[in-house]
Amino acid sequence: MFQTAELDRKVSKDEYHEQLPELRARLVQTQYQMRKADFSSIILFAGNDSVGRYDIVTTLFEWMDPRYLETRSFGDLTDEERDRPPYWRYWRVLPADGRASVFFGSWVRRPLMDRVDDLIDDDAFEAAIRRMRIFERMLAHEGTLLLKFWLHLPEKKLRKQVKALEKDSGTAAKISDHDRVMAKHFDRAQKIFTKFVRKTSIPEAPWIIVESGDQRYRNLTVGRTILETFDRGLAAMEARKDAASGGSSARTIVVPAIPAGGSQHNGGVDGGATVSAEAPVVTADSRSIMDTLDLSLNLEKDEYGEKLERYQNRLFALQNKAFQAGQTSVLVFEGWDASGKGGAIRRVTQGMDPRDYRIVPVGAPTEDELARHYLWRFWRLLPRKGHVRIFDRSWYGRVLVERVEGFAGEDEWRRAYSEINDFEEELVEHGILVLKFWMHIDRDEQLRRFKEREVTPFKKHKITEDDYRNREKWDEYEAAVNEMVERTSTEFAPWHLIEGNSKRYARVKVIKTFVDLLEERLGAR
Amino acid sequence: MFQTAELDRKVSKDEYHEQLPELRARLVQTQYQMRKADFSSIILFAGNDSVGRYDIVTTLFEWMDPRYLETRSFGDLTDEERDRPPYWRYWRVLPADGRASVFFGSWVRRPLMDRVDDLIDDDAFEAAIRRMRIFERMLAHEGTLLLKFWLHLPEKKLRKQVKALEKDSGTAAKISDHDRVMAKHFDRAQKIFTKFVRKTSIPEAPWIIVESGDQRYRNLTVGRTILETFDRGLAAMEARKDAASGGSSARTIVVPAIPAGGSQHNGGVDGGATVSAEAPVVTADSRSIMDTLDLSLNLEKDEYGEKLERYQNRLFALQNKAFQAGQTSVLVFEGWDASGKGGAIRRVTQGMDPRDYRIVPVGAPTEDELARHYLWRFWRLLPRKGHVRIFDRSWYGRVLVERVEGFAGEDEWRRAYSEINDFEEELVEHGILVLKFWMHIDRDEQLRRFKEREVTPFKKHKITEDDYRNREKWDEYEAAVNEMVERTSTEFAPWHLIEGNSKRYARVKVIKTFVDLLEERLGAR
Repeated sequence: MFQTAELDRKVSKDEYHEQLPELRARLVQTQYQMRKADFSSIILFAGNDSVGRYDIVTTLFEWMDPRYLETRSFGDLTDEERDRPPYWRYWRVLPADGRASVFFGSWVRRPLMDRVDDLIDDDAFEAAIRRMRIFERMLAHEGTLLLKFWLHLPEKKLRKQVKALEKDSGTAAKISDHDRVMAKHFDRAQKIFTKFVRKTSIPEAPWIIVESGDQRYRNLTVGRTILETFDRGLAAMEARKDAASGGSSARTIVVPAIPAGGSQHNGGVDGGATVSAEAPVVTADSRSIMDTLDLSLNLEKDEYGEKLERYQNRLFALQNKAFQAGQTSVLVFEGWDASGKGGAIRRVTQGMDPRDYRIVPVGAPTEDELARHYLWRFWRLLPRKGHVRIFDRSWYGRVLVERVEGFAGEDEWRRAYSEINDFEEELVEHGILVLKFWMHIDRDEQLRRFKEREVTPFKKHKITEDDYRNREKWDEYEAAVNEMVERTSTEFAPWHLIEGNSKRYARVKVIKTFVDLLEERLGAR
Repeated sequence: MFQTAELDRKVSKDEYHEQLPELRARLVQTQYQMRKADFSSIILFAGNDSVGRYDIVTTLFEWMDPRYLETRSFGDLTDEERDRPPYWRYWRVLPADGRASVFFGSWVRRPLMDRVDDLIDDDAFEAAIRRMRIFERMLAHEGTLLLKFWLHLPEKKLRKQVKALEKDSGTAAKISDHDRVMAKHFDRAQKIFTKFVRKTSIPEAPWIIVESGDQRYRNLTVGRTILETFDRGLAAMEARKDAASGGSSARTIVVPAIPAGGSQHNGGVDGGATVSAEAPVVTADSRSIMDTLDLSLNLEKDEYGEKLERYQNRLFALQNKAFQAGQTSVLVFEGWDASGKGGAIRRVTQGMDPRDYRIVPVGAPTEDELARHYLWRFWRLLPRKGHVRIFDRSWYGRVLVERVEGFAGEDEWRRAYSEINDFEEELVEHGILVLKFWMHIDRDEQLRRFKEREVTPFKKHKITEDDYRNREKWDEYEAAVNEMVERTSTEFAPWHLIEGNSKRYARVKVIKTFVDLLEERLGAR
């Protein structure tokens, strides 16, 4: 869930100062328009970067007109507050329509801190999450625009920050015990955060995960997201007014655009207020998770042959054991056209008893499938105990091709992230091992493979006009993939990103990943 | 929650046979239209009347064209099913668009039975409820019309039914151990059911509670509700098609109409397919919860004086103790115009230290309040520990006046039931005693009081044109009150219905209810 925020994204000083004036001017201008809005807005910050949280709020107040941006700070409970139910302190200061508030140390903070510090158990944490979802959903439905920013620092940077602050007696006070715990038990905290972000990313108000390592990048990203979301909110209000004169005036819930990467995206200010739902560009550095992959990774032929054989043999023995033990596996392969999904799948199945597995190629839905819920066809295909089912493309079509091609509306594919997480959670709770692979190649490699296919008689049928058409939408797909990895890399079924320019490297990595996880699972029994 | 299904509603044989032919004809006709629908439908039955569940399904298959109504029956898990996650058995048989299925022993059954039989604990029950909500919400959002009927038998009738069946060796097999447990531990089961119905009545698919004591009444009510809901679904589809040609085609979720009572409603067939959202008439016997109240109850003057004094004295001592103990109380008064809310409130406050309580008269919202969530003003008014706050009208305006007068849209007031339940749950979880009174008088008594006010100098200001206007909408209000009592009488804050034609009787009952509950609460500390 946070891999997409560990890309080391940066904005140079020059770029920052070049872009700032216009962003600030537009933010203030939008603030004035917001005064006449028939909705309110609450901006809140969470994440593992407590220093960053202070900094960004300070920055926002520099940038924006403080008369129209209230801060609400929630520290220890006052006597007044202790006397009432926990949410009273938030309710009493809810902003009115036309007003925006920054909530500092909001309802999010206490349950998260308490869980990380082990002061509450998982049941109490779940109860707190449930209450939070109810509250936020209710606000959103009644017209509050919720902007929830999650500032993420990778492990190394967090440790470094804690250390640096501790050294300096002037700043040591900024570091709480809680921060020390987070830095020390990073993995534990990370697991809690992953669950938290997943469960509290309701379709009406998802978390906006922002990489926090570079201040300039962080500031620009947050500023642009606020601007873009406010603008969308205002546009939705105008549309509502127009519709109302026509009779209908249903309120649509405006959801903040997600800083989704996309390598070709222009990071310039002109992109800052894109209203397009497909791939809003609100990041200042538009690298995506895929840009972190080292596509030069390769394997020599001999090494490949040797490793492949070794892993296939291990897989054979393991899957035999899995079958006996009733350990089911579900493998999902997604990836660019010609990224080598089929080849990787074949190398996996070569290492298994044919009675144990089945490959399911997923194409456009049939008439029968279209007449039902989009998850129906996948539910039906779940394997029996001990079997392996391999999906060559999958339910992720909903948030990839259906999103990009417009087959699913924005509300549909946004909702799908939690629907898919819930679906996979049901599988995992039933003891199924769920493995998801994203096969990644770059554009040049894809073109090379397309050309190759065209001249290879037995591969010719694999290449069509469609492939070239999809290629043109590479950026939109990349943004969709980035968000998919961010929102569906759960603590129980993370995405495995496979560097695919070298087919040999990719195949070995896939089968090794499967072998390792199966071994771990069977060993734990 | 189930009081509204203990009214002893009946339909005579003659009436039944007079109405049946048209209902059946229209049901079959609608079934044919449904074949072209772009949505599917699932009908399911739950409740404490297991015999009724069988009967009604048999009846539906007699009435409707069985070619277009599938039954899906879920008994013990098969081997196939045991191998997959629990919901697999439901997913695999989801009906396609244009099809309707009756699910017999659906996902609802097992968790409920297991909880009543004490085979699972409350945490597991909560988890099952959560999964259910996710599943049903997902179906509804993707276009499945969910009709969930809850058949309710009052305690006496349930016991009688179990006894009768046990006597007859031919039918004894129909009675399961579970039924015996339900009949024996009625209160325990009832509490579990109340929580269950509340938590699984999602706005997209609320439970339709049907009184099951009289077969003819039950059959007609279920049949009409199905007809009415299918018709609404088809109408929504047509509207969607029209809108699509105009550019927008957002899917609205069709929610079944609730068999809300209303004493003047015509129970005839012509009312059966009313599409009006305000007060759909789908009950065969239109009595409401309020018709069960004995409005002839009265107190003689002497007895009144004596009792009032006694209870006021007890209240004084108790509230003193409550203040010391930090026990907060919130009292809500709703009721017809001139039903005596103010008078009752005054009798309560006479028995308290003026420093301990505050009365809040709730009128039309101010500009400041309109600019925020409708619950905001009530949250702000929550009292400190040990205090009593008395609301003269309340947040229930949302589902009463705002519903009837159209100030809130259907989706808004439907959503409000669970929002209000959640709100009150937060208060109760914080230890607050929440008491809700519905002051009831009949139409004649109201008119009498209006006339009296008009000629009494110091009461004249209390009567306006508005009062007469509201009076004309008595039936719609009655339907709204009935549904309010049904959906917001929770296990932690039930409605107290007060027979109000006699002011003396009403006042004593109100204060006695408060005294008893406060005593119970303080005693338990």
